[in-house]
Amino acid sequence: MSPLILITNDDGIHAPGLKHLVECARAFGDVIVVAPDTPQSGKSSAITVESPLFITEHPGMEGAKVYSVSGTPVDCVKLGLHAIAPRNPDLLLSGINHGSNSGVSVIYSGTMGAVLEGCVVGIPSIGFSLLHHSLKADFSLSTMFVKEIIAKAFHTPLPQGVCLNVNIPAKVVPLGVRTCRAATGYWTEEYREYATPSGSPFYWLTGRFVNTEPQATDTDEYWLDRNYISVVPVTPDLTDADAVPALAKIFDE
Amino acid sequence: MSPLILITNDDGIHAPGLKHLVECARAFGDVIVVAPDTPQSGKSSAITVESPLFITEHPGMEGAKVYSVSGTPVDCVKLGLHAIAPRNPDLLLSGINHGSNSGVSVIYSGTMGAVLEGCVVGIPSIGFSLLHHSLKADFSLSTMFVKEIIAKAFHTPLPQGVCLNVNIPAKVVPLGVRTCRAATGYWTEEYREYATPSGSPFYWLTGRFVNTEPQATDTDEYWLDRNYISVVPVTPDLTDADAVPALAKIFDE
Repeated sequence: MSPLILITNDDGIHAPGLKHLVECARAFGDVIVVAPDTPQSGKSSAITVESPLFITEHPGMEGAKVYSVSGTPVDCVKLGLHAIAPRNPDLLLSGINHGSNSGVSVIYSGTMGAVLEGCVVGIPSIGFSLLHHSLKADFSLSTMFVKEIIAKAFHTPLPQGVCLNVNIPAKVVPLGVRTCRAATGYWTEEYREYATPSGSPFYWLTGRFVNTEPQATDTDEYWLDRNYISVVPVTPDLTDADAVPALAKIFDE
Repeated sequence: MSPLILITNDDGIHAPGLKHLVECARAFGDVIVVAPDTPQSGKSSAITVESPLFITEHPGMEGAKVYSVSGTPVDCVKLGLHAIAPRNPDLLLSGINHGSNSGVSVIYSGTMGAVLEGCVVGIPSIGFSLLHHSLKADFSLSTMFVKEIIAKAFHTPLPQGVCLNVNIPAKVVPLGVRTCRAATGYWTEEYREYATPSGSPFYWLTGRFVNTEPQATDTDEYWLDRNYISVVPVTPDLTDADAVPALAKIFDE
């Protein structure tokens, strides 16, 4: 039986990056797309608990079966596994996201929320993001690398409990691939302020990422700045196990 | 100047657990509440990017200033710091959540999304959750422990980049406190299936948590089952640094 590849994203069922990822993946097995009805950027690992979910079947795409779900990227994975996939997928792919998910952005990313969900249920899972927000972004410059990463993930199993956050530089043929860690940092100048016609203030999220370790040579930000693809191993286990002994001395009673 | 404590949650501005946390915290400094207008359970680290945010001021609560934001828990932290807090908070508290955030649930939790956000911007941050979903849950049985944890966090700084996920057993006076790691596991039997009057299927999230290591004695699930409060050190850095060298051999080129 052919391998089964489940593909989702956070930009929604109509995003060009999704179609490109299907094109990259289809040579490796049967592909099923389960993506959100609507754009879900910034949805992290959010799940829909207060309302029901609906599934819509769409015309096939590049030989893949295509469905959308009226929820978040994690809803797509959960409901895709529960109600759509005919068997357990051998690989879960998410993206290709229109925009970066490097550094601390991984915690807000719907693209990576879907990947973490796949990892939790034991499916090898990879998220791809291109550092370009436009719907007209050129995904073709990195096609060879995306296919190679998929091929390698089939050939050598990822470690248990680890998934991949792959970011791709924009507007260049990447110089290569570097496995690294996420740069630490934060977002700053985060809101543009407005006033309604009657004078009430309101706010819209914006801002820019501040890399607090620009000198470090082992981070995704460092390699992306140098036009390499970054591959960051990511875990859904948020426990900082190293901190347990010292904190136990303070808190245990 | 008194310490400043920023309090948020994911059950929304009217949740009894929020009021109880304000009562526990007010003896330690000036308290500002910035909580979501509406319930935001399961919102993880989601941020609002496609629409503006509004701030509403409410009557004070237990001596605290109280505001709500038309967004997610992370929106409350980001906008609270940007537009409401008069100075950088010395402590961020989130909760007390009506329901468990132990084990893998931390990745879906809006309560903990707010805590991770505080940690990213360098504020000591603690999330509290009671293992009881009811709005009538009795939070008073653990009051002494919650106050002690807050006092200890003021007395001994948390390690850089580490925040706390505190879960509290329901319907008992806790036997004590144990610092531990999150149990690994997953959710199963995840959807109830329905049909519309015209026969179209729809789905509602449900399910139960499966602890895949019930014998382990160093997990939050183990200690909560034994009526202890669990304290799990959590990091917003999702990189699995140990996996980098082996994966570099496969993916780097």
